[in-house]
Amino acid sequence: MTTQETVSIAIPTGVLLDGARGLLATSGLAALSAEELGRQLLVERERVRVIIVRPTDVPAYVDYGAADLGIVGKDILWETPGSHYELVDLHFGGCRLVLAVPNASALDGPQTWPPLMRVATKYPRTANAWFEARGQAVEIVRLHGSVELAPQVGLVDGIVDLTASGRTLRENGLRVTAVLGSSTARLIANQASLKTRTASVQSVVSRLREASNHAG
Amino acid sequence: MTTQETVSIAIPTGVLLDGARGLLATSGLAALSAEELGRQLLVERERVRVIIVRPTDVPAYVDYGAADLGIVGKDILWETPGSHYELVDLHFGGCRLVLAVPNASALDGPQTWPPLMRVATKYPRTANAWFEARGQAVEIVRLHGSVELAPQVGLVDGIVDLTASGRTLRENGLRVTAVLGSSTARLIANQASLKTRTASVQSVVSRLREASNHAG
Repeated sequence: MTTQETVSIAIPTGVLLDGARGLLATSGLAALSAEELGRQLLVERERVRVIIVRPTDVPAYVDYGAADLGIVGKDILWETPGSHYELVDLHFGGCRLVLAVPNASALDGPQTWPPLMRVATKYPRTANAWFEARGQAVEIVRLHGSVELAPQVGLVDGIVDLTASGRTLRENGLRVTAVLGSSTARLIANQASLKTRTASVQSVVSRLREASNHAG
Repeated sequence: MTTQETVSIAIPTGVLLDGARGLLATSGLAALSAEELGRQLLVERERVRVIIVRPTDVPAYVDYGAADLGIVGKDILWETPGSHYELVDLHFGGCRLVLAVPNASALDGPQTWPPLMRVATKYPRTANAWFEARGQAVEIVRLHGSVELAPQVGLVDGIVDLTASGRTLRENGLRVTAVLGSSTARLIANQASLKTRTASVQSVVSRLREASNHAG
Protein backbone atom coordinates (compact mmCIF):
# COMPACT_ATOMS: atom_id res chain seq x y z
CA MET A 1 0.00 0.00 0.00
CA THR A 2 1.46 3.33 -1.04
CA THR A 3 -0.05 5.11 1.95
CA GLN A 4 2.40 3.23 4.17
CA GLU A 5 5.45 4.87 2.60
CA THR A 6 7.52 6.94 5.01
CA VAL A 7 7.08 10.67 4.56
CA SER A 8 9.87 12.99 5.69
CA ILE A 9 9.15 16.33 7.37
CA ALA A 10 11.69 19.08 8.07
CA ILE A 11 10.83 21.06 11.21
CA PRO A 12 12.63 24.14 12.53
CA THR A 13 14.60 24.60 15.74
CA GLY A 14 13.85 27.78 17.68
CA VAL A 15 10.53 29.42 18.49
CA LEU A 16 8.44 27.24 16.15
CA LEU A 17 9.81 23.92 17.47
CA ASP A 18 7.27 23.51 20.27
CA GLY A 19 4.36 24.28 17.95
CA ALA A 20 5.63 21.80 15.34
CA ARG A 21 6.07 19.15 18.04
CA GLY A 22 2.51 19.78 19.29
CA LEU A 23 1.11 19.46 15.77
CA LEU A 24 2.92 16.17 15.10
CA ALA A 25 1.58 14.82 18.41
CA THR A 26 -2.05 16.01 17.91
CA SER A 27 -2.08 14.60 14.38
CA GLY A 28 -1.04 11.19 15.72
CA LEU A 29 1.95 11.12 13.37
CA ALA A 30 4.74 11.25 15.96
CA ALA A 31 5.01 11.82 19.68
CA LEU A 32 8.43 13.36 20.19
CA SER A 33 9.85 14.38 23.56
CA ALA A 34 11.42 17.82 23.90
CA GLU A 35 14.53 16.02 25.11
CA GLU A 36 14.69 13.86 21.96
CA LEU A 37 14.39 16.95 19.76
CA GLY A 38 17.14 18.72 21.67
CA ARG A 39 19.60 15.86 21.22
CA GLN A 40 18.91 14.53 17.73
CA LEU A 41 18.75 15.98 14.24
CA LEU A 42 16.84 13.03 12.82
CA VAL A 43 14.00 11.03 14.44
CA GLU A 44 12.42 8.03 12.72
CA ARG A 45 8.85 6.89 13.41
CA GLU A 46 6.62 4.32 11.72
CA ARG A 47 5.14 6.66 9.13
CA VAL A 48 7.27 9.78 9.34
CA ARG A 49 10.91 10.76 9.43
CA VAL A 50 11.44 14.07 11.22
CA ILE A 51 14.48 16.18 10.28
CA ILE A 52 15.28 19.00 12.71
CA VAL A 53 17.07 21.91 11.00
CA ARG A 54 17.65 25.65 11.34
CA PRO A 55 14.53 27.68 10.43
CA THR A 56 16.31 29.24 7.44
CA ASP A 57 17.31 25.78 6.14
CA VAL A 58 13.80 24.26 5.95
CA PRO A 59 13.10 25.51 2.38
CA ALA A 60 16.41 24.02 1.10
CA TYR A 61 15.57 20.58 2.51
CA VAL A 62 12.10 20.68 0.93
CA ASP A 63 13.04 22.32 -2.39
CA TYR A 64 15.83 19.79 -3.06
CA GLY A 65 13.66 16.84 -2.01
CA ALA A 66 15.53 15.74 1.12
CA ALA A 67 12.20 16.33 2.89
CA ASP A 68 8.74 15.83 1.39
CA LEU A 69 7.21 18.40 3.71
CA GLY A 70 8.39 21.26 5.84
CA ILE A 71 7.07 23.43 8.66
CA VAL A 72 8.45 26.96 8.43
CA GLY A 73 7.63 30.56 9.28
CA LYS A 74 6.16 32.71 6.51
CA ASP A 75 8.98 35.20 7.22
CA ILE A 76 11.52 32.65 5.95
CA LEU A 77 9.44 32.07 2.81
CA TRP A 78 9.45 35.82 2.06
CA GLU A 79 13.25 35.65 2.00
CA THR A 80 13.55 32.26 0.25
CA PRO A 81 10.79 31.99 -2.35
CA GLY A 82 12.22 28.73 -3.74
CA SER A 83 10.31 26.08 -5.62
CA HIS A 84 7.98 24.44 -3.08
CA TYR A 85 4.18 24.53 -2.71
CA GLU A 86 2.83 26.45 0.27
CA LEU A 87 -0.10 24.29 1.39
CA VAL A 88 -1.48 25.24 4.79
CA ASP A 89 -1.41 28.20 7.19
CA LEU A 90 -0.83 26.39 10.48
CA HIS A 91 -1.92 29.41 12.56
CA PHE A 92 0.78 29.16 15.23
CA GLY A 93 4.00 31.10 15.77
CA GLY A 94 2.38 34.44 15.02
CA CYS A 95 4.73 37.41 14.83
CA ARG A 96 5.29 40.60 12.87
CA LEU A 97 8.14 41.89 10.74
CA VAL A 98 8.60 45.51 11.83
CA LEU A 99 10.71 48.58 11.23
CA ALA A 100 12.02 49.73 14.62
CA VAL A 101 14.10 52.78 15.53
CA PRO A 102 15.72 54.00 18.77
CA ASN A 103 13.24 55.59 21.21
CA ALA A 104 15.06 58.93 20.92
CA SER A 105 15.12 58.87 17.10
CA ALA A 106 13.27 61.56 15.15
CA LEU A 107 12.25 58.93 12.59
CA ASP A 108 8.57 58.06 12.52
CA GLY A 109 6.35 57.98 9.43
CA PRO A 110 7.72 58.00 5.84
CA GLN A 111 7.64 61.83 5.81
CA THR A 112 10.45 61.79 8.43
CA TRP A 113 12.73 59.35 6.59
CA PRO A 114 16.14 60.63 5.43
CA PRO A 115 17.00 60.67 1.69
CA LEU A 116 18.97 57.47 2.23
CA MET A 117 17.84 55.21 5.06
CA ARG A 118 20.30 52.73 6.55
CA VAL A 119 18.69 49.59 7.95
CA ALA A 120 20.13 46.41 9.51
CA THR A 121 18.20 43.17 9.04
CA LYS A 122 18.23 39.41 8.64
CA TYR A 123 15.60 39.96 5.91
CA PRO A 124 17.44 41.91 3.17
CA ARG A 125 15.17 40.83 0.34
CA THR A 126 11.91 41.60 2.12
CA ALA A 127 13.14 44.89 3.57
CA ASN A 128 14.53 46.01 0.23
CA ALA A 129 11.28 45.25 -1.61
CA TRP A 130 9.22 47.06 1.03
CA PHE A 131 11.24 50.29 0.90
CA GLU A 132 11.45 50.14 -2.89
CA ALA A 133 7.65 49.91 -3.15
CA ARG A 134 7.54 53.15 -1.11
CA GLY A 135 10.10 54.95 -3.31
CA GLN A 136 12.54 55.15 -0.40
CA ALA A 137 16.28 54.74 -1.06
CA VAL A 138 17.68 52.28 1.45
CA GLU A 139 21.07 50.81 2.29
CA ILE A 140 20.59 47.34 3.73
CA VAL A 141 23.20 45.98 6.16
CA ARG A 142 22.69 42.26 6.27
CA LEU A 143 23.32 40.80 9.73
CA HIS A 144 22.91 37.28 11.08
CA GLY A 145 22.38 37.90 14.79
CA SER A 146 21.60 40.49 17.48
CA VAL A 147 20.21 42.98 14.98
CA GLU A 148 18.89 45.09 17.88
CA LEU A 149 22.49 46.03 18.77
CA ALA A 150 23.13 47.75 15.42
CA PRO A 151 21.39 51.12 16.08
CA GLN A 152 23.03 51.42 19.53
CA VAL A 153 26.51 51.48 18.01
CA GLY A 154 25.57 53.83 15.19
CA LEU A 155 25.65 51.22 12.44
CA VAL A 156 22.14 52.06 11.15
CA ASP A 157 19.11 54.34 11.51
CA GLY A 158 16.78 51.45 12.26
CA ILE A 159 16.24 47.71 11.98
CA VAL A 160 13.78 45.44 10.21
CA ASP A 161 13.26 42.46 12.46
CA LEU A 162 10.74 39.89 13.63
CA THR A 163 8.95 40.50 16.91
CA ALA A 164 6.30 38.55 18.79
CA SER A 165 5.90 40.18 22.21
CA GLY A 166 8.06 43.23 21.45
CA ARG A 167 10.13 42.57 24.57
CA THR A 168 13.58 42.38 22.91
CA LEU A 169 12.87 45.66 21.12
CA ARG A 170 11.82 47.39 24.36
CA GLU A 171 14.82 46.02 26.27
CA ASN A 172 17.07 47.55 23.63
CA GLY A 173 15.40 50.96 23.65
CA LEU A 174 13.70 50.51 20.29
CA ARG A 175 10.16 51.33 19.18
CA VAL A 176 8.13 50.08 16.21
CA THR A 177 7.40 52.68 13.51
CA ALA A 178 5.98 50.45 10.78
CA VAL A 179 4.77 46.89 10.22
CA LEU A 180 6.04 45.19 7.04
CA GLY A 181 3.99 42.03 7.44
CA SER A 182 2.52 39.34 9.69
CA SER A 183 3.88 35.82 9.80
CA THR A 184 2.67 32.42 11.01
CA ALA A 185 3.96 28.87 10.54
CA ARG A 186 3.23 27.29 7.14
CA LEU A 187 3.25 23.76 5.78
CA ILE A 188 5.22 23.51 2.53
CA ALA A 189 5.71 20.55 0.18
CA ASN A 190 8.26 19.38 -2.33
CA GLN A 191 6.68 19.65 -5.78
CA ALA A 192 7.86 16.26 -7.07
CA SER A 193 6.83 14.45 -3.85
CA LEU A 194 3.31 15.77 -4.14
CA LYS A 195 3.08 14.65 -7.77
CA THR A 196 4.73 11.23 -7.58
CA ARG A 197 3.89 10.04 -4.05
CA THR A 198 0.54 11.76 -3.87
CA ALA A 199 -1.38 9.36 -1.61
CA SER A 200 1.15 9.08 1.23
CA VAL A 201 2.10 12.74 1.21
CA GLN A 202 -1.52 13.92 0.97
CA SER A 203 -2.49 11.67 3.86
CA VAL A 204 0.12 13.31 6.10
CA VAL A 205 -0.90 16.77 4.89
CA SER A 206 -4.56 16.02 5.75
CA ARG A 207 -3.68 14.91 9.24
CA LEU A 208 -1.56 18.01 9.88
CA ARG A 209 -4.25 20.28 8.44
CA GLU A 210 -6.89 18.68 10.67
CA ALA A 211 -4.67 18.88 13.76
CA SER A 212 -4.02 22.52 12.96
CA ASN A 213 -7.76 23.27 12.69
CA HIS A 214 -8.43 21.61 16.03
CA ALA A 215 -5.64 23.59 17.70
CA GLY A 216 -6.94 26.82 16.17
CA MET B 1 45.69 64.04 22.68
CA THR B 2 44.35 62.09 19.78
CA THR B 3 45.83 58.84 21.06
CA GLN B 4 43.31 58.93 23.92
CA GLU B 5 40.30 58.62 21.59
CA THR B 6 38.22 55.51 22.17
CA VAL B 7 38.73 52.84 19.53
CA SER B 8 35.93 50.33 18.91
CA ILE B 9 36.65 46.66 18.21
CA ALA B 10 34.12 44.08 17.00
CA ILE B 11 34.93 40.58 18.26
CA PRO B 12 33.13 37.35 17.37
CA THR B 13 31.09 35.02 19.57
CA GLY B 14 31.82 31.31 19.13
CA VAL B 15 35.15 29.51 18.86
CA LEU B 16 37.25 32.65 18.42
CA LEU B 17 35.83 34.47 21.47
CA ASP B 18 38.30 33.05 23.99
CA GLY B 19 41.28 33.84 21.76
CA ALA B 20 40.04 37.40 21.20
CA ARG B 21 39.52 37.85 24.94
CA GLY B 22 43.05 36.55 25.63
CA LEU B 23 44.53 38.95 23.08
CA LEU B 24 42.69 41.97 24.54
CA ALA B 25 43.94 40.99 28.01
CA THR B 26 47.59 40.34 26.98
CA SER B 27 47.68 43.63 25.05
CA GLY B 28 46.58 45.49 28.19
CA LEU B 29 43.65 47.03 26.30
CA ALA B 30 40.80 45.35 28.19
CA ALA B 31 40.45 42.60 30.78
CA LEU B 32 37.03 41.09 30.13
CA SER B 33 35.54 38.23 32.12
CA ALA B 34 33.99 35.32 30.24
CA GLU B 35 30.82 36.05 32.22
CA GLU B 36 30.72 39.66 31.05
CA LEU B 37 31.11 38.58 27.43
CA GLY B 38 28.33 36.02 27.78
CA ARG B 39 25.85 38.58 29.14
CA GLN B 40 26.63 41.76 27.21
CA LEU B 41 26.90 42.77 23.58
CA LEU B 42 28.80 45.95 24.32
CA VAL B 43 31.58 46.51 26.89
CA GLU B 44 33.16 49.93 27.43
CA ARG B 45 36.70 50.38 28.78
CA GLU B 46 38.95 53.43 29.08
CA ARG B 47 40.53 53.16 25.63
CA VAL B 48 38.41 50.60 23.82
CA ARG B 49 34.79 49.81 23.20
CA VAL B 50 34.26 46.09 22.55
CA ILE B 51 31.27 45.03 20.44
CA ILE B 52 30.44 41.31 20.61
CA VAL B 53 28.71 40.08 17.43
CA ARG B 54 28.17 36.93 15.36
CA PRO B 55 31.32 35.88 13.47
CA THR B 56 29.63 36.50 10.12
CA ASP B 57 28.63 40.02 11.20
CA VAL B 58 32.13 41.31 12.08
CA PRO B 59 32.93 42.53 8.51
CA ALA B 60 29.64 44.51 8.34
CA TYR B 61 30.41 46.34 11.60
CA VAL B 62 33.91 47.22 10.38
CA ASP B 63 33.08 47.98 6.73
CA TYR B 64 30.28 50.41 7.68
CA GLY B 65 32.40 52.07 10.38
CA ALA B 66 30.42 51.02 13.48
CA ALA B 67 33.72 49.44 14.61
CA ASP B 68 37.21 50.75 13.82
CA LEU B 69 38.72 47.27 14.10
CA GLY B 70 37.50 43.70 13.98
CA ILE B 71 38.78 40.25 14.89
CA VAL B 72 37.42 37.62 12.51
CA GLY B 73 38.27 34.24 10.96
CA LYS B 74 39.83 34.26 7.50
CA ASP B 75 37.01 31.88 6.45
CA ILE B 76 34.48 34.68 6.96
CA LEU B 77 36.63 37.07 4.88
CA TRP B 78 36.66 34.58 2.00
CA GLU B 79 32.86 34.78 1.96
CA THR B 80 32.57 38.54 2.66
CA PRO B 81 35.39 40.32 0.83
CA GLY B 82 33.98 43.77 1.73
CA SER B 83 35.94 47.00 1.92
CA HIS B 84 38.16 46.72 5.02
CA TYR B 85 41.94 46.38 5.35
CA GLU B 86 43.25 43.03 6.55
CA LEU B 87 46.14 44.03 8.84
CA VAL B 88 47.42 41.15 10.95
CA ASP B 89 47.33 37.36 11.00
CA LEU B 90 46.65 36.75 14.71
CA HIS B 91 47.74 33.09 14.51
CA PHE B 92 44.96 31.65 16.70
CA GLY B 93 41.74 29.82 15.81
CA GLY B 94 43.42 27.63 13.23
CA CYS B 95 41.08 25.42 11.18
CA ARG B 96 40.62 24.11 7.67
CA LEU B 97 37.84 24.43 5.12
CA VAL B 98 37.39 20.92 3.74
CA LEU B 99 35.31 18.89 1.32
CA ALA B 100 33.93 15.90 3.25
CA VAL B 101 31.84 12.94 2.04
CA PRO B 102 30.16 10.00 3.82
CA ASN B 103 32.61 7.23 4.81
CA ALA B 104 30.82 4.81 2.47
CA SER B 105 30.85 7.20 -0.50
CA ALA B 106 32.78 6.26 -3.66
CA LEU B 107 33.82 9.91 -4.01
CA ASP B 108 37.48 10.60 -3.43
CA GLY B 109 39.79 12.53 -5.78
CA PRO B 110 38.50 14.76 -8.65
CA GLN B 111 38.62 11.75 -11.03
CA THR B 112 35.74 10.19 -9.02
CA TRP B 113 33.49 13.26 -9.00
CA PRO B 114 30.11 13.00 -10.79
CA PRO B 115 29.36 15.28 -13.79
CA LEU B 116 27.33 17.50 -11.45
CA MET B 117 28.37 17.51 -7.81
CA ARG B 118 25.86 18.56 -5.16
CA VAL B 119 27.41 20.17 -2.08
CA ALA B 120 25.91 21.71 1.08
CA THR B 121 27.82 24.54 2.74
CA LYS B 122 27.76 27.76 4.74
CA TYR B 123 30.46 28.99 2.33
CA PRO B 124 28.71 29.15 -1.08
CA ARG B 125 31.02 31.74 -2.58
CA THR B 126 34.26 30.01 -1.58
CA ALA B 127 33.02 26.52 -2.51
CA ASN B 128 31.73 27.71 -5.85
CA ALA B 129 35.01 29.41 -6.76
CA TRP B 130 37.02 26.35 -5.74
CA PHE B 131 35.04 23.90 -7.88
CA GLU B 132 34.91 26.35 -10.78
CA ALA B 133 38.73 26.65 -10.76
CA ARG B 134 38.81 22.86 -11.14
CA GLY B 135 36.33 22.79 -14.02
CA GLN B 136 33.81 20.88 -11.92
CA ALA B 137 30.09 21.63 -12.29
CA VAL B 138 28.60 22.04 -8.84
CA GLU B 139 25.18 22.71 -7.34
CA ILE B 140 25.60 24.56 -4.06
CA VAL B 141 22.91 24.15 -1.38
CA ARG B 142 23.37 27.02 1.02
CA LEU B 143 22.67 26.04 4.62
CA HIS B 144 23.02 27.98 7.87
CA GLY B 145 23.44 25.19 10.42
CA SER B 146 24.19 21.49 10.98
CA VAL B 147 25.66 21.06 7.49
CA GLU B 148 26.92 17.59 8.51
CA LEU B 149 23.32 16.33 8.53
CA ALA B 150 22.78 17.04 4.83
CA PRO B 151 24.53 13.97 3.30
CA GLN B 152 22.80 11.63 5.81
CA VAL B 153 19.36 12.55 4.49
CA GLY B 154 20.39 12.41 0.84
CA LEU B 155 20.36 16.17 0.29
CA VAL B 156 23.89 16.27 -1.15
CA ASP B 157 26.95 14.23 -2.21
CA GLY B 158 29.22 16.03 0.22
CA ILE B 159 29.76 19.13 2.30
CA VAL B 160 32.23 21.99 2.37
CA ASP B 161 32.68 22.97 6.00
CA LEU B 162 35.13 24.24 8.55
CA THR B 163 36.86 21.74 10.81
CA ALA B 164 39.45 22.10 13.55
CA SER B 165 39.77 18.71 15.25
CA GLY B 166 37.68 16.77 12.72
CA ARG B 167 35.53 15.39 15.54
CA THR B 168 32.14 16.59 14.27
CA LEU B 169 32.90 15.09 10.86
CA ARG B 170 33.89 11.72 12.37
CA GLU B 171 30.83 11.65 14.65
CA ASN B 172 28.65 12.09 11.58
CA GLY B 173 30.35 9.38 9.52
CA LEU B 174 32.12 11.80 7.18
CA ARG B 175 35.70 11.80 5.91
CA VAL B 176 37.79 14.61 4.39
CA THR B 177 38.60 14.21 0.68
CA ALA B 178 40.07 17.66 -0.07
CA VAL B 179 41.25 20.79 1.71
CA LEU B 180 40.04 24.09 0.23
CA GLY B 181 42.07 26.32 2.54
CA SER B 182 43.45 27.05 6.00
CA SER B 183 42.05 29.76 8.21
CA THR B 184 43.19 31.70 11.29
CA ALA B 185 41.89 34.79 13.09
CA ARG B 186 42.70 38.12 11.42
CA LEU B 187 42.66 41.75 12.53
CA ILE B 188 40.78 43.94 10.07
CA ALA B 189 40.31 47.74 10.03
CA ASN B 190 37.83 50.23 8.70
CA GLN B 191 39.48 52.13 5.87
CA ALA B 192 38.30 55.61 6.91
CA SER B 193 39.23 55.05 10.59
CA LEU B 194 42.77 54.17 9.65
CA LYS B 195 43.06 57.29 7.49
CA THR B 196 41.37 59.87 9.70
CA ARG B 197 42.10 58.62 13.23
CA THR B 198 45.48 57.14 12.40
CA ALA B 199 47.30 57.64 15.70
CA SER B 200 44.72 56.12 18.04
CA VAL B 201 43.81 53.23 15.75
CA GLN B 202 47.45 52.42 14.92
CA SER B 203 48.31 52.43 18.62
CA VAL B 204 45.67 49.77 19.31
CA VAL B 205 46.75 47.78 16.24
CA SER B 206 50.39 47.81 17.46
CA ARG B 207 49.40 46.53 20.88
CA LEU B 208 47.31 43.73 19.42
CA ARG B 209 50.06 42.80 16.96
CA GLU B 210 52.62 42.67 19.75
CA ALA B 211 50.34 40.61 22.02
CA SER B 212 49.74 38.24 19.12
CA ASN B 213 53.49 37.79 18.54
CA HIS B 214 54.06 37.04 22.23
CA ALA B 215 51.26 34.48 22.26
CA GLY B 216 52.62 32.85 19.09
